[in-house]
Amino acid sequence: MKLRLDVALVHAPVINRNGETIGSAVTNLDIHDIARACCSFGVDTYWIVTPFAKQQELSRKIIDHWCEGYGKRVNTDRGEALSLIRIANTIDEVIDNVKSKWPDKMRVVATCARNWDKSKTTSYSAMHRDLEKQEAALLLFGTAWGLAPEVFDLVDTILPPITGGGEYNHLSVRSAVSIILDRLAGQRDSFNF
Amino acid sequence: MKLRLDVALVHAPVINRNGETIGSAVTNLDIHDIARACCSFGVDTYWIVTPFAKQQELSRKIIDHWCEGYGKRVNTDRGEALSLIRIANTIDEVIDNVKSKWPDKMRVVATCARNWDKSKTTSYSAMHRDLEKQEAALLLFGTAWGLAPEVFDLVDTILPPITGGGEYNHLSVRSAVSIILDRLAGQRDSFNF
Repeated sequence: MKLRLDVALVHAPVINRNGETIGSAVTNLDIHDIARACCSFGVDTYWIVTPFAKQQELSRKIIDHWCEGYGKRVNTDRGEALSLIRIANTIDEVIDNVKSKWPDKMRVVATCARNWDKSKTTSYSAMHRDLEKQEAALLLFGTAWGLAPEVFDLVDTILPPITGGGEYNHLSVRSAVSIILDRLAGQRDSFNF
Repeated sequence: MKLRLDVALVHAPVINRNGETIGSAVTNLDIHDIARACCSFGVDTYWIVTPFAKQQELSRKIIDHWCEGYGKRVNTDRGEALSLIRIANTIDEVIDNVKSKWPDKMRVVATCARNWDKSKTTSYSAMHRDLEKQEAALLLFGTAWGLAPEVFDLVDTILPPITGGGEYNHLSVRSAVSIILDRLAGQRDSFNF
């Protein structure tokens, strides 16, 4: 089932290991893995957010290879996933686009590896139910060491961090997106908790 | 909580796009992403299975960089995850090792993107309960187009495929491992289904 759900992978503003706000580089496997997860779980558009022209150019080259070029001939499934991608300069540009697509009520939702503002935090079950009711949402994921603090001020809701019960809390963004989409949209009959 | 759970990423025998049995190449981000997920969800050992000496050498070089070399100085967290890795020639070698570590009762569990032998298939909830009771298991994941058919004959149990409700069913192995570990060992309080 196609959801009213978009995913944005944010390369700026994010923080580095020292907590400084930076712009990060686009990674080939972020494009592929996250597009494949988005396509598997019924995401409408997968946004790659970077203000850097060269990074946008690289992203387009990779996408074109699989959607139009040689890659399409050898693996059509990959092109199907990568055709969900759109490139944007800023988070604001994405929000404007998604709001014009789903004008009724659209929530901007941040994800984070740490606990953030508790009063803004929702649960996976609540958001899962909202998506089933065809409510619209835009999920933001940060690359590098995560979304910059100012992003958390502009969002409507935050999802709690994913933890396995131990101390270690350093999933790749590719793993985090996959797990969160499964929690929000994975089929429950084979899931069977 | 540390589980009695090992993960093996199998590079041979797997199948290619034409269903032929092959050996695949080790991928740098399979090493990193899966090690980080294993470390987050309490996996004991992450096995990389390849019979090819050059591929084993490459894997060791990557692991050593993060566990001993320059990588350790700039990012200690990464070394912590990659220190879970052991390299093996064959699935049988892994099974022998895991059986000697957990001799009581150890189940070998295959994962697959397609439905396989229904009589052998378990549910995520059942396996989640078993792991909580400290029962031991070895999870096998196939690279390329998945585990070769003969692997399904040797395993005790199979986990059902992960689906998002649509037709598209082409997650990366990195995404599949992350989702399956979350279903089997993710913390339920933040999960809250």
